[in-house]
Amino acid sequence: MPTAHEIATLSLKQHLGSAVSTDADALYRASFDGMKLSFLPSAVVSVRNDAHVGSVLKLANLHNVPVTTRGGGTSLTASASPFKGGWVLDMTPLNSVEIDALEGLAHVEAGAIVATVQQSAESHGWMYPPDPSSVKHSTIGGNLACNAGGLRGAKYGVTRDYVVALEGYLPTGERVCWGRPLRKWAVGYNMRDLWIGSEGTLGVITKATLRLIPRPEQKATFLAAFASEEEALNAVIKIAEARFIPVALEFLDTESVSGLENFTGTSVFPECPGAAILLIEIDGNASQIETQRAFLRNTIAPLTKGFRTANSEEEAESFWNVRRKCSPAMFAHGDSKLNEDIVVPLRSQLKLIEFLRTLRTSSGLHIPTFGHAADGNFHVNIMYNRDDANACERAKKAVKELMSAVVSMGGAISGEHGIGLAKSDYLRLQCSDNELQAMLAIKKALDPKGILNPGKIFTPYPAWEKRPEKIRLAWDHRGD
Amino acid sequence: MPTAHEIATLSLKQHLGSAVSTDADALYRASFDGMKLSFLPSAVVSVRNDAHVGSVLKLANLHNVPVTTRGGGTSLTASASPFKGGWVLDMTPLNSVEIDALEGLAHVEAGAIVATVQQSAESHGWMYPPDPSSVKHSTIGGNLACNAGGLRGAKYGVTRDYVVALEGYLPTGERVCWGRPLRKWAVGYNMRDLWIGSEGTLGVITKATLRLIPRPEQKATFLAAFASEEEALNAVIKIAEARFIPVALEFLDTESVSGLENFTGTSVFPECPGAAILLIEIDGNASQIETQRAFLRNTIAPLTKGFRTANSEEEAESFWNVRRKCSPAMFAHGDSKLNEDIVVPLRSQLKLIEFLRTLRTSSGLHIPTFGHAADGNFHVNIMYNRDDANACERAKKAVKELMSAVVSMGGAISGEHGIGLAKSDYLRLQCSDNELQAMLAIKKALDPKGILNPGKIFTPYPAWEKRPEKIRLAWDHRGD
Repeated sequence: MPTAHEIATLSLKQHLGSAVSTDADALYRASFDGMKLSFLPSAVVSVRNDAHVGSVLKLANLHNVPVTTRGGGTSLTASASPFKGGWVLDMTPLNSVEIDALEGLAHVEAGAIVATVQQSAESHGWMYPPDPSSVKHSTIGGNLACNAGGLRGAKYGVTRDYVVALEGYLPTGERVCWGRPLRKWAVGYNMRDLWIGSEGTLGVITKATLRLIPRPEQKATFLAAFASEEEALNAVIKIAEARFIPVALEFLDTESVSGLENFTGTSVFPECPGAAILLIEIDGNASQIETQRAFLRNTIAPLTKGFRTANSEEEAESFWNVRRKCSPAMFAHGDSKLNEDIVVPLRSQLKLIEFLRTLRTSSGLHIPTFGHAADGNFHVNIMYNRDDANACERAKKAVKELMSAVVSMGGAISGEHGIGLAKSDYLRLQCSDNELQAMLAIKKALDPKGILNPGKIFTPYPAWEKRPEKIRLAWDHRGD
Repeated sequence: MPTAHEIATLSLKQHLGSAVSTDADALYRASFDGMKLSFLPSAVVSVRNDAHVGSVLKLANLHNVPVTTRGGGTSLTASASPFKGGWVLDMTPLNSVEIDALEGLAHVEAGAIVATVQQSAESHGWMYPPDPSSVKHSTIGGNLACNAGGLRGAKYGVTRDYVVALEGYLPTGERVCWGRPLRKWAVGYNMRDLWIGSEGTLGVITKATLRLIPRPEQKATFLAAFASEEEALNAVIKIAEARFIPVALEFLDTESVSGLENFTGTSVFPECPGAAILLIEIDGNASQIETQRAFLRNTIAPLTKGFRTANSEEEAESFWNVRRKCSPAMFAHGDSKLNEDIVVPLRSQLKLIEFLRTLRTSSGLHIPTFGHAADGNFHVNIMYNRDDANACERAKKAVKELMSAVVSMGGAISGEHGIGLAKSDYLRLQCSDNELQAMLAIKKALDPKGILNPGKIFTPYPAWEKRPEKIRLAWDHRGD
């Protein structure tokens, strides 16, 4: 006798035919995302048109089958993993991108790769600013689901800031549009922004209209080394005090830089190996570049132990490679990494650095830290060996202590990755019961059967106890 | 025997003492907003601290009393009127403004006047860009409730774009914070943006953290007259094609300009009286101003019948006065005005102008139109005499035809005023049943007893049939 769930999946196949796959390989590939916690689904639907989504959701509600929406699968929080099994909506076949060059809008389907959207915009002389490090692999739908940030956030904000309108389906399968391709809209509730960042739990996005901005004329890139992490972060404050808004202002702590230098065998600044670093990118017209460059030269450079200006695209790339290579270098300190994307106010950055030092001592672990200093959004990377039970315990304890410390500094437990399963255990440190009850009431109102991406965000899950898959993903930096 | 409602109000007085007023004058003043439809409340609570709000809402839920939140009362849609009676929360006593000059944030209480926030930001070298025409009278809370737009929207967007975090109370009286004073936040659902623009139906905002931007170094103002409305709007397209983003790009149609000229007795451009006008403001550093000025001089000026550059602050003010005086001048065409803040896509602007001409003919009414052309957000002003029953009927029919036409052009029935009671009758032209059901499910989830601002947005109301109060408000332009 087939189970109720098996009957549901048969019915799904009957409705959607070859769009539905149940072969073991497809199921395995859809069973995890960038966090690599595997939960097998019972079917994967290759979404070929909008209406597929509605049909799947209607059937899922009828048969009580969990549904998880999947883009590029680059989530670092397991938010795209089919935690409770059921069906996966693979949105990647829906990937058209159309640029409206007059209005400065991009009409994109959810499965479009972010880099493709950026390139399409550029080919029309426009710019789509959000630039998460997964840009070549993640989809717009996924970026919307977690409100992705990225490297240009200091000046250009996050994904939400570029969304004009969304189309898609309610968890119960009804088609809806939130907003229109217009510059203003004051009609009813703002469901658009409620969907953005809700990690695929309140609806399925099939299309988005994105706002583009004129491309800046020029850019310039700088690398600065400081006598200490404190000196580097004081420079960040100086930049903020000057009301100077760089495109990127990336901080690398001494542990990140030393690790990188051991990994590559060369010093970034031979005159001061292992020094904390700021990577600064600015853009604008010639006069803006000149003003900003002068400020950096006259006010910031004197605070440094080393200061370099990129004289070519290639040199700018080499500066960015310093930032990019920090990630693979970290694996010298352990085979596993907890990348916590916490946020603190500008004036708590020094306190955070101090706290991380005590955390290294108390945990006995390496915790190389880098991040978007202008936003106060740091990636704290707790390194350990998965087979060392004692190190695992210490890492687990360190994360919890980090989260508590961040909240006590007035910060946030996540700035751009979201909660998913990874941070569900810490959500109550940040949000009050009143706040969570309101969010859950909304979930219940829109998804009465709890069909869509169940178990994410709100139910504390001991993500720690589940072993990640030993698999190398296309975007894994390790060893690159 | 006192009624249940009277007992509830007695209990309110017992709890909040002198903060509660039931005198006839206070009740009358709180009975209407800028739309002047009067609905008497049974008590007005002068909110002196955050906790007052929680207490009022708890009592209101206990006794089933409607509650309406009120800021400056400048709403043009009756969204701040106590439509179902009950209690009014007067937020104006909660009006502190604190600038965090380092982080570039303003911490404000809901009752703070928007102009005060702007001035406080400026005194610290920062800028709070949203600039609705009610700026001297409306509160931040009210601006958040309707996601106010304004005159700088072309470059700087709307209120929502500057909100970092909100504090306040759920309709059921529990205190909540949505977001923190941080540049990034990816924790749980985005209730902040759900509250913004929900017209006081989903919660009561008591505090907000607003993002400020560095003040632009310079600005410049221009006035251009065109041979026809089409020529003026073609210039708007030329500006869009050049990816040139002015701070303001205000369009005045020929009927607005002729009306103004009759009203003041002088021609704006003596060389072409009654010509359609664009008012253009730009800002930036010296080099940006120069580039933009050159573009206007070389590309736009040749398309005009008259082109003027403001050579002083006073002259710029006089250009702005052309725009401002259009409103009072309109009352030569009738004692009543329907100001419809519709939005159309850039490429439908000419179609809108054509439609308005046929509407003038079919209705026999004056319909002077101006607005924020870069956003496609026009104020279509249908003028009529309230005591002329036939004109009333024609005006009513004209609004309905306008709304249908706008929606069929891919536009929006409101760009910045919201729905309130005024547009509730047209909401179904714009939103599908699926969309409205989802919004109503959220309302029900957060406000199960329907306590907060009942009857607004979703229930069609024949606003037409209720006579507005004959009263002059502080911000009424008429005759100024």
